[in-house]
Amino acid sequence: MLGTFVFALSGAAAGVKRKLDFFGIMAVSFAAANSGGIARDLLIGATPPAAITDWRYLAVSLAAGVLTFFWHPAIHRLHHFVLIADAGGLALFAVSGAQKALALGLPPVMAALLGMLTGIGGGIMRDLLLNEVPSVLRSEIYAIAALAGAAIVVGGHLLVLPPTTMAIAGALVCFGIRLLAIVRHWHLPAPASQAQQHSERD
Amino acid sequence: MLGTFVFALSGAAAGVKRKLDFFGIMAVSFAAANSGGIARDLLIGATPPAAITDWRYLAVSLAAGVLTFFWHPAIHRLHHFVLIADAGGLALFAVSGAQKALALGLPPVMAALLGMLTGIGGGIMRDLLLNEVPSVLRSEIYAIAALAGAAIVVGGHLLVLPPTTMAIAGALVCFGIRLLAIVRHWHLPAPASQAQQHSERD
Amino acid sequence: MLGTFVFALSGAAAGVKRKLDFFGIMAVSFAAANSGGIARDLLIGATPPAAITDWRYLAVSLAAGVLTFFWHPAIHRLHHFVLIADAGGLALFAVSGAQKALALGLPPVMAALLGMLTGIGGGIMRDLLLNEVPSVLRSEIYAIAALAGAAIVVGGHLLVLPPTTMAIAGALVCFGIRLLAIVRHWHLPAPASQAQQHSERD
Repeated sequence: MLGTFVFALSGAAAGVKRKLDFFGIMAVSFAAANSGGIARDLLIGATPPAAITDWRYLAVSLAAGVLTFFWHPAIHRLHHFVLIADAGGLALFAVSGAQKALALGLPPVMAALLGMLTGIGGGIMRDLLLNEVPSVLRSEIYAIAALAGAAIVVGGHLLVLPPTTMAIAGALVCFGIRLLAIVRHWHLPAPASQAQQHSERD
Repeated sequence: MLGTFVFALSGAAAGVKRKLDFFGIMAVSFAAANSGGIARDLLIGATPPAAITDWRYLAVSLAAGVLTFFWHPAIHRLHHFVLIADAGGLALFAVSGAQKALALGLPPVMAALLGMLTGIGGGIMRDLLLNEVPSVLRSEIYAIAALAGAAIVVGGHLLVLPPTTMAIAGALVCFGIRLLAIVRHWHLPAPASQAQQHSERD
Repeated sequence: MLGTFVFALSGAAAGVKRKLDFFGIMAVSFAAANSGGIARDLLIGATPPAAITDWRYLAVSLAAGVLTFFWHPAIHRLHHFVLIADAGGLALFAVSGAQKALALGLPPVMAALLGMLTGIGGGIMRDLLLNEVPSVLRSEIYAIAALAGAAIVVGGHLLVLPPTTMAIAGALVCFGIRLLAIVRHWHLPAPASQAQQHSERD
C-alpha cells in the first residue's frame, strides 16, 4: 500500500506538471500506481486484477492524487523524500510481483521479469498517458534494480530457501541498488554514437 | 450500436486530421469505438470481448470510417451534431458498461468506474494512437458525466430499484451533464499555477 | 522464431535511433517482437501468452537487441536485408496468428483480423513506446499484406482446403504483396486535402 501511494504521488506530480485537470490527475495517479500490477495480472490470467476488485488500491491512489492536487508545491519540496519512497515502492512491487507469478506456476525467468514489470509498468503507463517516451527506457538504473530484487525472490524459490527471508533480501537489494544509482548518478550504457543521427526511421 | 458509430466517427475524424492513410483511419475508427469495451472485458476476464466475436461492432466501426474518409468535410460541418451524438454514445457506453460489470459480480465502486472506463476508453486509445495526451485527462466535463451515469445504475442496483428505469435515468443524467458542459463551457479545476513551470520531470 | 528475431531487430534499431539506454533497447526489442502475439492471446483469453511462458521468445528478442546494441551501424547497412526479413516475419506472424484464432473457434472475419493484429501489433507497441504515431497507420502497404495472408488461411479453413498448403499460400501472398509494395513504393490513399488544416481537434 505504501508502494501504491508513492507511485500514485509520482503519477499525480507528473500530471500537475502537464497541466491536467482534476480528473486527469486522479486518472494518472491510479494508472501510475496500479498499471504494473494490472498488466501482470492480465498476462498471467488472474482476472479481475486485485486493483479492480479491492477498493483500497483505488482509495490510496485517489488520496495521493488529491494531496498532490492541493499541495503540489509542498510535495515538490519533498522531492528527495518522494524519490526514496519511490525506490521503496519499486522494491515492494518487484518482490510481490515475482511472488505472485511464482505462486501461479510461471517459469523462473518469466516470474522475475513479471516482478520487474509489476515495478516498472505503472511508470510506463504514466509516461504513455502523458505522451512521453517512458523514462525507464531512457536512463538511470531503475528496471535493473527491480529485476535484481525479483531475481533474488525467484532464486530463493528455486533453491527452496525460506520465502520471507528471500523476499526481504530481494526488497533490500532492489532498494539499495536504486538508492545508490540515485546518489551516484549511475546510468546504463547507451549505444555508441551514430553517423545517421536524426535520419528517418526505416 | 449508435454509440459505436459516433465514437468511430470521432476516431476517423481525428485520423483524417492527422493525415493517416485509409487503413490507419479504419484502425483508429475501430479502436475509438471499441477500446473502452475491450478494456473493460479484459479487466473483468470476459474474453474474448464482444467487440472481437460480434462482427457488427466491426461493421459499424468501418462504416463510420469509410463515411468519414470520403465525406469528412461534410462531417466537419455536422460538428455540433457529432458532439451531441458523442454525448449520447458516452451515456449508452457508461450505462451498459456498469451493467455488465455488475452482472459479473464486481463491487459497486468498481462497477461504476468500469462503466466510466467503457465510456472514455475509446477516446483514450484514439489519442494514444495519434500521439496526443488523452483529451479526457486535460479538460472538459466528460469522464465525470460518464461516472455519474454509471453511478446511478450502480446505486439503483444497491437499492434494488428497477434496473431498466435506473439505466434510462443514468443515461439521461450522463447525456444531460455532458450537453450542459458543452453549452456552458464547464471545466474541471486545474491545479493552482506553479513556480516550476516547464521544468523537467523528476 | 525468425519472425520474432527480425521484429526484435526493428524494435532495437528504432530504440538505438531514439537514444534509449541498454535496458530500453532490450525492452523495445521484446515489445516489438512479442506484443502482437501477446495482444492476440489476451483478446482470445489464451493466458498466459506463449511469449510469457516460453523462454525462447525472450532469448531470441534479447539476442536481436544485444546484436543491434553493439553492431547497429552494421545492421543499418543491412537495411534492405532487414526490410525483406521483416516482410517474412509479417507473413509468418499473420498466418500463425490466424491459425491460432481459428483453432480457438473465433468467427472467420475476426480470425483474419487477429492474424493481422499478430503481424502489426509489435510495430504499433514499438512506436507507442517511442512516442510516435504508429507507422502502420500512416503509410505503406503493410497491414493490408498481413490481412491478405491471414484471409487466405481463413478462407482455406472455410472451404476445408488442406491447412498446410493454405498457410504456405497465405504466407507467400503476404510476403509478395509487402515486397512489391516496398519495391514499387505503393501507398494506400490518404483522405482528400482539407480546408481546415491544422485546426484543433474537436
